[in-house]
Amino acid sequence: MPKLRLFTPGPTMVPDEILLEMARPIEHHRTQTYRDWLKEATENLQYLFQTKGTCLTITGSGTAAAEGAIVSIVPPGKKALVCHGGKFAERWRDVCKRFKIEHVEYEYEYGRGADPARVAEILKKEANIAAVITVHSETSTCAVSDVAAIAKHTRAHDCLLMTDCITSVGCLPFKMDEWGIDIAITGSQKALMLPPGLGFVAVNDRAWKVIDSFDAPIFYNNLKAFRKSLADWDAPWTPANTLVRALRMALSMIKKEGLENIWARTARLAKATRSAAQAMGLTVFAKDPADSVTGINTPAGVDNDKWRKEMKSKFGVQLADGQGQLAGKMVRISHMGWVDDLDTLGAIGAMEMTLRSQGHKCEVGAGTTAFLKGLGG
Amino acid sequence: MPKLRLFTPGPTMVPDEILLEMARPIEHHRTQTYRDWLKEATENLQYLFQTKGTCLTITGSGTAAAEGAIVSIVPPGKKALVCHGGKFAERWRDVCKRFKIEHVEYEYEYGRGADPARVAEILKKEANIAAVITVHSETSTCAVSDVAAIAKHTRAHDCLLMTDCITSVGCLPFKMDEWGIDIAITGSQKALMLPPGLGFVAVNDRAWKVIDSFDAPIFYNNLKAFRKSLADWDAPWTPANTLVRALRMALSMIKKEGLENIWARTARLAKATRSAAQAMGLTVFAKDPADSVTGINTPAGVDNDKWRKEMKSKFGVQLADGQGQLAGKMVRISHMGWVDDLDTLGAIGAMEMTLRSQGHKCEVGAGTTAFLKGLGG
Repeated sequence: MPKLRLFTPGPTMVPDEILLEMARPIEHHRTQTYRDWLKEATENLQYLFQTKGTCLTITGSGTAAAEGAIVSIVPPGKKALVCHGGKFAERWRDVCKRFKIEHVEYEYEYGRGADPARVAEILKKEANIAAVITVHSETSTCAVSDVAAIAKHTRAHDCLLMTDCITSVGCLPFKMDEWGIDIAITGSQKALMLPPGLGFVAVNDRAWKVIDSFDAPIFYNNLKAFRKSLADWDAPWTPANTLVRALRMALSMIKKEGLENIWARTARLAKATRSAAQAMGLTVFAKDPADSVTGINTPAGVDNDKWRKEMKSKFGVQLADGQGQLAGKMVRISHMGWVDDLDTLGAIGAMEMTLRSQGHKCEVGAGTTAFLKGLGG
Repeated sequence: MPKLRLFTPGPTMVPDEILLEMARPIEHHRTQTYRDWLKEATENLQYLFQTKGTCLTITGSGTAAAEGAIVSIVPPGKKALVCHGGKFAERWRDVCKRFKIEHVEYEYEYGRGADPARVAEILKKEANIAAVITVHSETSTCAVSDVAAIAKHTRAHDCLLMTDCITSVGCLPFKMDEWGIDIAITGSQKALMLPPGLGFVAVNDRAWKVIDSFDAPIFYNNLKAFRKSLADWDAPWTPANTLVRALRMALSMIKKEGLENIWARTARLAKATRSAAQAMGLTVFAKDPADSVTGINTPAGVDNDKWRKEMKSKFGVQLADGQGQLAGKMVRISHMGWVDDLDTLGAIGAMEMTLRSQGHKCEVGAGTTAFLKGLGG
């Protein structure tokens, strides 16, 4: 004791039945059994991304999926526009650098979403932009961008929109086809309630047209290789098939609950958590907060590291630190995946008790009461 | 019924305790717990590869590890020498093509190992070869190459030797440092007795010197990024941490049995299987057979597909078909990892019974008797 309660924004908690699914005897992947798993999972990934496009499953992290997407959508002689206001979007900029992909940067404030109007201005000014690269929910700052509004501008130009949905798809409303997003990526260890090890890329016909116009300088994370194998419900390289088996189960759980219900649950938990933070005399970092993960500023007089350590050692509640320049300045609590009202109530209770023990003044029950009120009483 | 017996050359059977280890509650990877796992696993990977070099763990398949290695060891203006006599070595040639790495090809006969003398000749003739790329055990043809002899020639030149050890390390004798191999790769789903999802790259100082001399055009499978994170027992991108936890257990099982004992067990099973094949009137495909996996030619009059299907449906024994141009012409039976005398005796028994049912003439008990004799009676 205490029990571990994982509130980090990935990996998130994995349901017991999924853990047990991974403990079943190993199967070979060039079998009808595996093809049936991948077929079912792929169809349900289309539901998850809300797309009729192709959904590719890659053995690797979300960064593998992002690399595969980025190197494939900017033909030689063309440019990318990278919108960044956090560590992950900066990583996608670094991918462009590593592959010598010409790119324009639109840097926005940490804690904010990208401004669609600014994207429109840049698209008007800069010629030759083949793709805009955005992050829907920036896990490092816990801020959300209005990618639907950005898509209106990319659709008005001969330009693709790529969206990092690593902490959005399956927890925040995301409608790839309806919104006009051309290529979207995610990873297994967030809203999908799985361990890390799989990355996903959803690709529409508009994106395939660009991808098919040139040979991307990549072998392993090559989207065309994955598309070719997927025609036979197969993978080009040996897939992490225990994770694919578990993916099938996770997606079936998501389908059963229904995306709209999951979106509502996530939003309710986020809203109630923000109320609780305020009631405990804390502030939320993001000015455009995402509902998938809440970043709470560590209050003056409290040592971030000691605070998180006490939460984990006394109550088993594991939150994440800030990342990069935000390290030591905030705690991040996830609302993604297999987490419900009472789990989060517990985390708020732990936050309250440890804040007081670290010398922060806040009334007993202030956070939990506000949380319950935020849930609707 | 029947029970599944997985004799494919990857994935191989996974021990029950490793399957259960993966079903334990998920942990976050930026924790001391994870760092302890990775530290222990990394030290035992050095034992596995028999090296004092750096052992990197990548979330991806063996192809991810190979991509990371190949793009890192051929500086601009230099060439690779790709030795190929099978589908996997051809894949590494294709990696060179995709990244526009200048390369010379030494093509040898399917079923043979690369001829070290021929490598020496090419190294003498061709200037500017930075790295020789070889496969120790070519899984597609079930043939072994004498990479120790090749290393003598690369060491006589200012040239690295990269060896694909995907179906060799942990089952065939392999001594990276003693033999003078500079960079070696493997994957989790072979001798390591794990599900697919992890790739490994072992790198010595001679290789790091070349790797550090230029920036490889790769982001995800970037060896320098993995080395940098490994200094803190961490990964640059979210690792498949349930597999890393299981890796730690698998390596500890390997260490307990002892590499020499595992090498002897694998060789004994392979030798007895080859004897059994002969006694059943069958022939082994490879002229230089590897002990990790035996490729047996499908005899005239037997339909390869029907034969394998009957073995699986009646006896649960799953063998692999040939690959590429060898598809439909052979069956491959693995001796890697968690497989012992009686498992393999059972597979030989199934092979015998189904051969007869498919119309092949062979005396009852001929295969199993020869197998037992091959084991030493």
